[in-house]
Amino acid sequence: MGPHTDMTRGKGYRVIAEFSIHPIGEGTSVSKYVGAALAELRKAKGLRLQVTPMATIIEAAKLSDILAAVGDAHEALFRLGAKRVDFALRVDDRRDKERRMEDKVRAV
Amino acid sequence: MGPHTDMTRGKGYRVIAEFSIHPIGEGTSVSKYVGAALAELRKAKGLRLQVTPMATIIEAAKLSDILAAVGDAHEALFRLGAKRVDFALRVDDRRDKERRMEDKVRAV
Amino acid sequence: MGPHTDMTRGKGYRVIAEFSIHPIGEGTSVSKYVGAALAELRKAKGLRLQVTPMATIIEAAKLSDILAAVGDAHEALFRLGAKRVDFALRVDDRRDKERRMEDKVRAV
Amino acid sequence: MGPHTDMTRGKGYRVIAEFSIHPIGEGTSVSKYVGAALAELRKAKGLRLQVTPMATIIEAAKLSDILAAVGDAHEALFRLGAKRVDFALRVDDRRDKERRMEDKVRAV
Repeated sequence: MGPHTDMTRGKGYRVIAEFSIHPIGEGTSVSKYVGAALAELRKAKGLRLQVTPMATIIEAAKLSDILAAVGDAHEALFRLGAKRVDFALRVDDRRDKERRMEDKVRAV
Repeated sequence: MGPHTDMTRGKGYRVIAEFSIHPIGEGTSVSKYVGAALAELRKAKGLRLQVTPMATIIEAAKLSDILAAVGDAHEALFRLGAKRVDFALRVDDRRDKERRMEDKVRAV
Repeated sequence: MGPHTDMTRGKGYRVIAEFSIHPIGEGTSVSKYVGAALAELRKAKGLRLQVTPMATIIEAAKLSDILAAVGDAHEALFRLGAKRVDFALRVDDRRDKERRMEDKVRAV
Repeated sequence: MGPHTDMTRGKGYRVIAEFSIHPIGEGTSVSKYVGAALAELRKAKGLRLQVTPMATIIEAAKLSDILAAVGDAHEALFRLGAKRVDFALRVDDRRDKERRMEDKVRAV
């Protein structure tokens, strides 16, 4: 990523994201692959994670840490033998207010 | 929806979905609007809900019930004054195996 | 959908959406299934469609027409034999300004 | 990204992705911001782009190039003054068959 990355973010601010991944064409049960992706996210430094029935919520100080972990998770599925992998990443980055993932649930 | 809807689904099977909504152009804090959408989902019959930091997980016996509730949630934001509303809905429908939203988390 | 649906929308306003669908566990090539979904969208009245490499863009006067067509497309995959189907729908609904799908591309 | 990245990909294979971004709280018209994101994607080396009414399709030889460009696009919105930015990235990576973005449209 370029030199401008994250230059406007203060200490204490967090990016909150959501990541969902699965192989296409490896049977209807994909939990082995989802588990391998999750293992990569857990290995990454500086991420807080929450597993939900449809995705994994990721909180980090920097977007680049999330993107690196997502890239590693993606490769993990191919190492397990997947031939086609789809993922979806949604990112919510707010810099006018410090907040953690719990705050978003509390607010509604 | 047409006459073919849900004809292959047995009793006990559940559609699991994820719904995220916000207005664009009503300030950076959108929890009032998200709360209104959630109130609509809670009014809908037959849905199980779990709020996460990035979305609401919805479980239902029929996709059509989810789609109707999502449509109602969408309109609720305009009634609150929003001029532009974006939402994302992801649906996972599996008919070879009965499962609830908890089972998906447990499997990984 | 409830009685409040679309009550604030004037004539000429259009909802613009994006729909992506595939089976999980029916092989890595899913174009037969995507084609069946697309055939359902084409049968639906009142939709304008644009196929892209990652999704189908849908424009309609009413969100309910989009949701009904999406539900029919979803069922079409099960009729073809899919046991698990995932879809993603993103909706952008703007009511302060009339626009068509072409306008969004032109503006950027 | 870790050392395993992209190790199984042959020459000629392409990752196809879809990227959508907007600020929350900067008014209902966001085309200035979307244009700035697009300018970043166009500056990135090795990407093929197609703008659609709901997103930008990105094709690249390596996922890491897509992720880097997406990170730069994200920062561009904050440099324009946005206080909150949301984006969605969907990735489809198939390694059993060479294909370009046009092939996906042709197949359905």
